[in-house]
Amino acid sequence: MSSKNIVDEGDLILLVFDEKRRWLVKVEKDKEFHTHKGVIKLNDVIGKTYGSSVKSSTGAKFRVFKPLPRDYILKMRRITQIIYPKDIGLILLYSGIGPGWKVVEAGTGSGALTVVLAYYVRPDGHIYTYEVREEFQKLAIKNIKNAALEKYVTFKLKDISEGIDERNVDAVILDMATPWLVVPHAYEALKEGGSFVSYSPTIEQVQKTVFSLLKTGFFDIITIECFTRRILVREGKTRPATSMISHTGYLTFARKIT
Amino acid sequence: MSSKNIVDEGDLILLVFDEKRRWLVKVEKDKEFHTHKGVIKLNDVIGKTYGSSVKSSTGAKFRVFKPLPRDYILKMRRITQIIYPKDIGLILLYSGIGPGWKVVEAGTGSGALTVVLAYYVRPDGHIYTYEVREEFQKLAIKNIKNAALEKYVTFKLKDISEGIDERNVDAVILDMATPWLVVPHAYEALKEGGSFVSYSPTIEQVQKTVFSLLKTGFFDIITIECFTRRILVREGKTRPATSMISHTGYLTFARKIT
Amino acid sequence: MSSKNIVDEGDLILLVFDEKRRWLVKVEKDKEFHTHKGVIKLNDVIGKTYGSSVKSSTGAKFRVFKPLPRDYILKMRRITQIIYPKDIGLILLYSGIGPGWKVVEAGTGSGALTVVLAYYVRPDGHIYTYEVREEFQKLAIKNIKNAALEKYVTFKLKDISEGIDERNVDAVILDMATPWLVVPHAYEALKEGGSFVSYSPTIEQVQKTVFSLLKTGFFDIITIECFTRRILVREGKTRPATSMISHTGYLTFARKIT
Amino acid sequence: MSSKNIVDEGDLILLVFDEKRRWLVKVEKDKEFHTHKGVIKLNDVIGKTYGSSVKSSTGAKFRVFKPLPRDYILKMRRITQIIYPKDIGLILLYSGIGPGWKVVEAGTGSGALTVVLAYYVRPDGHIYTYEVREEFQKLAIKNIKNAALEKYVTFKLKDISEGIDERNVDAVILDMATPWLVVPHAYEALKEGGSFVSYSPTIEQVQKTVFSLLKTGFFDIITIECFTRRILVREGKTRPATSMISHTGYLTFARKIT
Repeated sequence: MSSKNIVDEGDLILLVFDEKRRWLVKVEKDKEFHTHKGVIKLNDVIGKTYGSSVKSSTGAKFRVFKPLPRDYILKMRRITQIIYPKDIGLILLYSGIGPGWKVVEAGTGSGALTVVLAYYVRPDGHIYTYEVREEFQKLAIKNIKNAALEKYVTFKLKDISEGIDERNVDAVILDMATPWLVVPHAYEALKEGGSFVSYSPTIEQVQKTVFSLLKTGFFDIITIECFTRRILVREGKTRPATSMISHTGYLTFARKIT
Repeated sequence: MSSKNIVDEGDLILLVFDEKRRWLVKVEKDKEFHTHKGVIKLNDVIGKTYGSSVKSSTGAKFRVFKPLPRDYILKMRRITQIIYPKDIGLILLYSGIGPGWKVVEAGTGSGALTVVLAYYVRPDGHIYTYEVREEFQKLAIKNIKNAALEKYVTFKLKDISEGIDERNVDAVILDMATPWLVVPHAYEALKEGGSFVSYSPTIEQVQKTVFSLLKTGFFDIITIECFTRRILVREGKTRPATSMISHTGYLTFARKIT
Repeated sequence: MSSKNIVDEGDLILLVFDEKRRWLVKVEKDKEFHTHKGVIKLNDVIGKTYGSSVKSSTGAKFRVFKPLPRDYILKMRRITQIIYPKDIGLILLYSGIGPGWKVVEAGTGSGALTVVLAYYVRPDGHIYTYEVREEFQKLAIKNIKNAALEKYVTFKLKDISEGIDERNVDAVILDMATPWLVVPHAYEALKEGGSFVSYSPTIEQVQKTVFSLLKTGFFDIITIECFTRRILVREGKTRPATSMISHTGYLTFARKIT
Repeated sequence: MSSKNIVDEGDLILLVFDEKRRWLVKVEKDKEFHTHKGVIKLNDVIGKTYGSSVKSSTGAKFRVFKPLPRDYILKMRRITQIIYPKDIGLILLYSGIGPGWKVVEAGTGSGALTVVLAYYVRPDGHIYTYEVREEFQKLAIKNIKNAALEKYVTFKLKDISEGIDERNVDAVILDMATPWLVVPHAYEALKEGGSFVSYSPTIEQVQKTVFSLLKTGFFDIITIECFTRRILVREGKTRPATSMISHTGYLTFARKIT
């Protein structure tokens, strides 16, 4: 995913006009991509070096990048709520999810978090991701295939609150409406010292989850919220951005003890 | 680093009494670790499962964990300013640094960021880290060895503002007083589309760096600050923590274009 | 402005349909006010108790309130940038502007800050407000008259960076592009121990102003930024609002010493 | 409180050495004030202009200021939790409490909020403040007398959750453990359209209060939290402060409707 630096047929690229106008595009032979600034022939993109540019039919210049994790998250097709890069960054650093880890995730949703988790456990780790709604899973499978990460992911059409099949996993990560119902199953599935993560928008979800973790034998339970603010650096006019996302979800972390 | 779940001689463990009292300890045979709650014989720790506990001479219970990235950062020995887990999380997600990446870093400092970068580029990536002060480098080497990540890191005692030896790297990341002096060298070292990251405490450093990036041919330049706040979940008394870190440094990201 | 609780002809009222749809309305006899939910005859409002409701031609219910300072600020007609309630609250508490104070303000802009300052220095204080653009001043005069606070305000069509006419004032407050040019004049105008306030969107304005304050003989110089976030309290679904204003302006405070 | 600019016997002054070392001092004849930098004879302060300085026995220079609202709050003697200037600023702007208002407050605590409310309702308004603990009330009376604001305040040693004696008041403001118990009494005491304010540290208090307000006939119910961050403006090294208060209390506002 990182070594090759030339666009091949079948690659997923990030096409950028400016900060707002950018798309994830699958490079298919003889296809076109339509923008507000004219049509881009995808054949023109094949063979380009990442970081270079391509011109549309109207002569507008578009940059061609290899998508970074944040590009996948912010630009992939989705039918569910997004989880933001800032939150996934914290998840990695606080849970330890990284190369070689075996991770259980639920729910899959549109697969944004799945893509990033798969990216970071490569090449020896694996993601087992649970989802109950088939249409979500279908979209997620498509998104993971576009990112060429499918070999690191097992998709399960199953209600995780009825149990987790895997054992001795390094981490369990929940982005679902009722995480507290999964806490005892997470305990069973995790290896000793393993990481539990839950992401929830409401404070009541956090309370139920934390109280369940306390009862089930987890340790080092902490809940965090994370904010990011853009700084607009302009000659003589530097200032923070006017508005920001002020809430996505609370992150709760814990470790299994015995 | 993640599969084995039993403490061996030579491992670096996280020993936890409670939220505030926790240490990174190298498990050496026949050695003792002294705490405010008595002495722990490290022989007692060898062979334990991670997630289990050990008792001190006074009968106090200490948990034994495999260190997570945040534990390395917050608890490793250091003689320089810390970079926080929240900031490193953003760095990973926004730069794309991950398994297989070839990354140039400066300055090494105490090696906290180096450890986490090495952890995330495993097993096929590599970190080239520059430092001008020998005492910093010595400590960093010790910290990376304790984390058993030394094979992923090349230490260089060299002033990066005089040039970068590597070429075609995936990312350059700077945590140093004068990042703007390194911007042209970073451009030379990076492959097309590669990621530039700079971490700076003052707004004047950010301004100089951004203006230098604009002149040098970088794209997608953004500056972000990140905050985290703890939520204290208590039965009937849930509330955010009273104080928080309100500033560490600004993060500036950019991509090389051609 | 606070004792009487019945709507009279000529009063400025806040008419509220819901959280988003609310207007400041001047109650003029035989006039109508048109909304998306039908027409309100203002004659129907005259004689109503504040806190009660009135029906539109379509039967929709509108609440009638006496405007609070935040309603004036957020709903008055304006052609300039807004200053938010959160910032004006800090200005009052940090500068001490209150009943009986004599205050110099520049620029008047649309008069939002002027209205609130006049409200708080009543009944014995006074606001001297400077503005260079006549169209701004005209709108501000109209806004202050609507709020029935005109006797507490003297409007001056004058460039404050050429000097302040008043002496021995309790406070000088600047919301203008080049506050640093006014710092020496503010020093002349203020009584000993008097309060200086400046509100600026960019960090460069803050820097120039602070350096000018340091040179001119001010003391206790502090710069603050202020954020507010809404909490949405819903049965079983309590959570912070999704987005917030992340920057308006920096507030700089200082006291004159001799 | 604002017109006179010379220190008289009996005045409460703010004595300032630097940003951290500052005290509220009652100027009593023939008394001394002891600091880490020597003794200040208070006779030397009498007759000084505010904004000027006085020397201690060791020659150290101290600034003499008339206390601003924030100085009262941060420096008055207290035995209860503080309410911060940032929060009181929002209270004023969102509730409309100002000159001429009749306000009910509970609990009095050490009187910090009482002092600021009294300051802002002068000269025609009044504060009725309830407290159940006599030792708190005694301290509060002393603090209000020191601020020479006693004629604007009526102190009541009474449990406000058993009822409010006043009627037709402009605002009710609660800083107490169980504000929800007072909501129906506040409704009785307020005039139509009047402002309700509650300040609570925990989310459960906010929930109970908001649900009680919804049941009792209040309107325009909003809950806000407020943050402030210092910016350290230094030549070439401008940056936000490293730590900040991340939580004091949530503010809930509502208006009575009929």
